[in-house]
Formats: sequence, C-alpha cells, structure tokens
Amino acid sequence: MKRVKLDISYDGTNYHGWQIQPKEITVESVINQALSQLCQEEIKVIGASRTDAGVHALGNVAVFDTESQIPAEKFAPALNARLPWDIRVQSSRLVPDDFHPRHCDSIKTYEYHILNRKIAIPSKRFYTYHFHWNVDMEAMREGAKYIIGEHDFKSFCSAKTQVTETVRTIYSLDLRKEGDEIILRIRGNGFLYNMVRIITGTLLQVGTGYYKPEQIKEMLELKNRQSAGACAPPMGLFLVGIEYPDLPSVEDMEIQMPQ
Amino acid sequence: MKRVKLDISYDGTNYHGWQIQPKEITVESVINQALSQLCQEEIKVIGASRTDAGVHALGNVAVFDTESQIPAEKFAPALNARLPWDIRVQSSRLVPDDFHPRHCDSIKTYEYHILNRKIAIPSKRFYTYHFHWNVDMEAMREGAKYIIGEHDFKSFCSAKTQVTETVRTIYSLDLRKEGDEIILRIRGNGFLYNMVRIITGTLLQVGTGYYKPEQIKEMLELKNRQSAGACAPPMGLFLVGIEYPDLPSVEDMEIQMPQ
Repeated sequence: MKRVKLDISYDGTNYHGWQIQPKEITVESVINQALSQLCQEEIKVIGASRTDAGVHALGNVAVFDTESQIPAEKFAPALNARLPWDIRVQSSRLVPDDFHPRHCDSIKTYEYHILNRKIAIPSKRFYTYHFHWNVDMEAMREGAKYIIGEHDFKSFCSAKTQVTETVRTIYSLDLRKEGDEIILRIRGNGFLYNMVRIITGTLLQVGTGYYKPEQIKEMLELKNRQSAGACAPPMGLFLVGIEYPDLPSVEDMEIQMPQ
Repeated sequence: MKRVKLDISYDGTNYHGWQIQPKEITVESVINQALSQLCQEEIKVIGASRTDAGVHALGNVAVFDTESQIPAEKFAPALNARLPWDIRVQSSRLVPDDFHPRHCDSIKTYEYHILNRKIAIPSKRFYTYHFHWNVDMEAMREGAKYIIGEHDFKSFCSAKTQVTETVRTIYSLDLRKEGDEIILRIRGNGFLYNMVRIITGTLLQVGTGYYKPEQIKEMLELKNRQSAGACAPPMGLFLVGIEYPDLPSVEDMEIQMPQ
C-alpha cells in the first residue's frame, strides 16, 4: 500500500463542485472513476478543498491509497489520458501514509478575478465576475488591511457552514490591476465556507463607497454573517494552490521507503 | 435610412465562425436575427472580418442600414438585451452611408495566445493553444522581423483562399510573455485567410529550432503555401480590434446630418 498525492487543476464550469454527490457530476466523482479504472480497485480520494459549483482550481490537492504497482509520479500522465479536458492532473507524488490534505498545516492561495469594465467580454464570462461599476482600488486596499492577520471570520462565512471553529489567519491579501481585470490574491492557513467570495463581495462594496474601509473592522468584531457584505459569484474564484511546509520531499521519502 | 456601425466581441467556441451558413449557427446569423427582431425589418449586416470557427473577437466590426428610429448609439444596449452571453456589442455609432468595413483603409490587430507549459490549464483550453515544447523566444522574435513590412504573403495564406492579390503590410509583430503565456500581437492593413495562424505556427517552429529565423525570408520569396510552416489551431486567436483612420468622428457627423 502507498499513499499518492495529486495536484489537480480543473475548470469548474461544468461540475457541481468538488465534493461527490449522489446524482450530480462532480470533480471528485470523475477522478474516483478514472483512478478506480486505472488501478483496477475501488479508489476514493480525500480532497483538500471542497470547491463550490463553478469555482476553478489551478492546484487543488487530493490523496488516495492504492496497491497498484504504478510508480507514484506516473499517475499524472496515466490519469490525464483518462480524464476529460476540463480536469488535468499537474503532478503526482508519493507521500507518507499518514499525510492528510486537510489535517496538516497548509497555506492556501486563492485568486478572485473581477472584470471591471462597462460591457462584458464574452470569452471571460466563466472566469471573471463582470462588475461594471467604478471602484476605488485604494479604498479596497485600505479595507483589505483589516482582513490580514488572525481573526474570527464568522461574519465572512456562509451561515450554512457546519464548522464551529471560525478563527483563521490571513498572511496576505493583495489587489492588483491587469488591464481591465482586478485580481484579488489571498493567502491563509484556511478558509471558511464562501469566505473568499464574501471578502471579495464586501471589498467591492468598499470600492463603490457603499461601505467605508474601516467598517471591515466592525464587521469582524460583530461575528455575524449579516454584518458583512455580499457574496461574490463563483465563476471569478480560482484555488491557485496549497503548500504543505511539513511534507517531506520525494527524495527524502525515497531514502526511507523500501525499494 | 441610416448606416450604423457595431463593435462586437464574441467567444467563438460555440459558433461555426462569423459568416452566415445555411445549416450552422454563426455569429453573423445570430446578430442578423436579433437586429431584424429589434428593427422589425429584415437586416443583413456587412462584417469586416470573417473569423473562422473557434476564433474569438474583442472588436470585430459590422455595419447595417435601417429605417429604425432607434438612435445609433442605443443599438449596443438594445442588442445586448437580445443576444446570447457569448456575443456582446461593445458600442454602436452612426457612420456615413458609404462607409464599408472591408473597402476602407483600416488597421487590424490580432493576438494569438499560446500556453507554453508542460500540462494544460483547463480554464484556458478554449482560449489558448497549449504548446508544451520549449521555445526560444529570441529566435521567434528574430524570425518575426522578416514578417514586418510590405510583402507578398502568398506562402502564409491557406491554399483555399479565393483572393488573388496577396500583398499586405504588417506594421508590427510583437511577442511578449505573461506568466506561462506567449502572446503574439500583430497589426497590419489586412490579413489573408489563416494568415495569423500560419505565421504563429511557423514562428513556433522557429522557436523549437525546426526552422532557422532567416528561413522566414525564403518562405516569403517562394510564394507557395508549402514553403511555410504549420497552421496554429483557431482557439488561440483573438481579433482585438479594427481602426478606421478616415472615419469621421460622431461629433463631426452630427453637425452634417439633418436633425
């Protein structure tokens, strides 16, 4: 038995999110099916992030256990030959048997892409949120400062969540402009249900002047979803990647593993 | 009667190109239908560029004549309310009755987007050409220099063309890198059938070392499609926009027009 980690990118447009569901096509179900066929055994992956319907990933992470003789690093090309074009495995590697993608220290990076112009651009309609109002980037950056650090993000979490521990640490939140796109990039040790989308929606409302930047501080203190702003729609959101600082390198593992 | 010019952006993925066809859905047919419904008369637009299936536009141009009382600049929002999301009219304006989008001096700008990395990114699969081989950008730039200027581009034109006059002037051809994307931007007074895609495909073969940069010069001199390289696929190509230097401004026209 070995545990293999996959770095997976996907276009979320045609999926009902990551997590397996009884009647809908999800990224997890498609990957389980391809892996089970490849390994000739029933495989169920454990995913790091349960992205919502319409949300994209450049590097979500999943692990699985297998008795297969296929070398860990060969799973990426073997899976890509079986997966549809809107899912690509970027890499695969061996990890320790006890490595769990959700119960390990990790740093997650998300980007939210906003198309800020009067009329939408058709080729970007599934990959940006078209927001046609003028926004004050400096006000958004000022509001973003209150998000950085360790806070209770209960106000920035969908009320539908089942999680009770709502303290998270945000390491950075940058806003940059590329042509008529505003890109919000956020790094943290974890994110609650809809957290990036509610932060984005609220900061856009700071950008239009509906909220003052310093109101973000009050919203955090109130610990109530009603106090924060709108939830931005899913199509602008990309899970960029997940880093695991404590994961040993493949080279170190190969020295320990029986050959 | 008045003549109205439309600046149109579209995602070419789901269309059989611009030009109207008896049995296929095309951008032109969808626009004709929306305009005819809006104006309550049969409208047939004249397009500037007949883009191929899968090719995108940020700013293709079309004109039409109408008896409608709708002010010219109101056609953009009125059409957008009737068009599918993969076609957006960026703007509409009044033009002289004899303005023809193909028989006027114009400068066309195209971009070709290449995703240059080992494994594809799913969300870019309809908007970039995934080219996984390493390329030498400097060699490509050196080859590109031979394209700039007035040349007979017969070698860089699909043999299927019906055009006999194959001399065109290229004002600029720039290659830039944005992350793992290579973007080729080309401006000229006109482009032959598949010309941008054959230039791109050939320059990529210069990038991999299959051709030497100076062979572009020979290819041009041979005036034969067989002498040039591959035709890059359609999904990486965007018609960025078309400028008409001689077109009077709307303000100048309004002074001349009877109110």
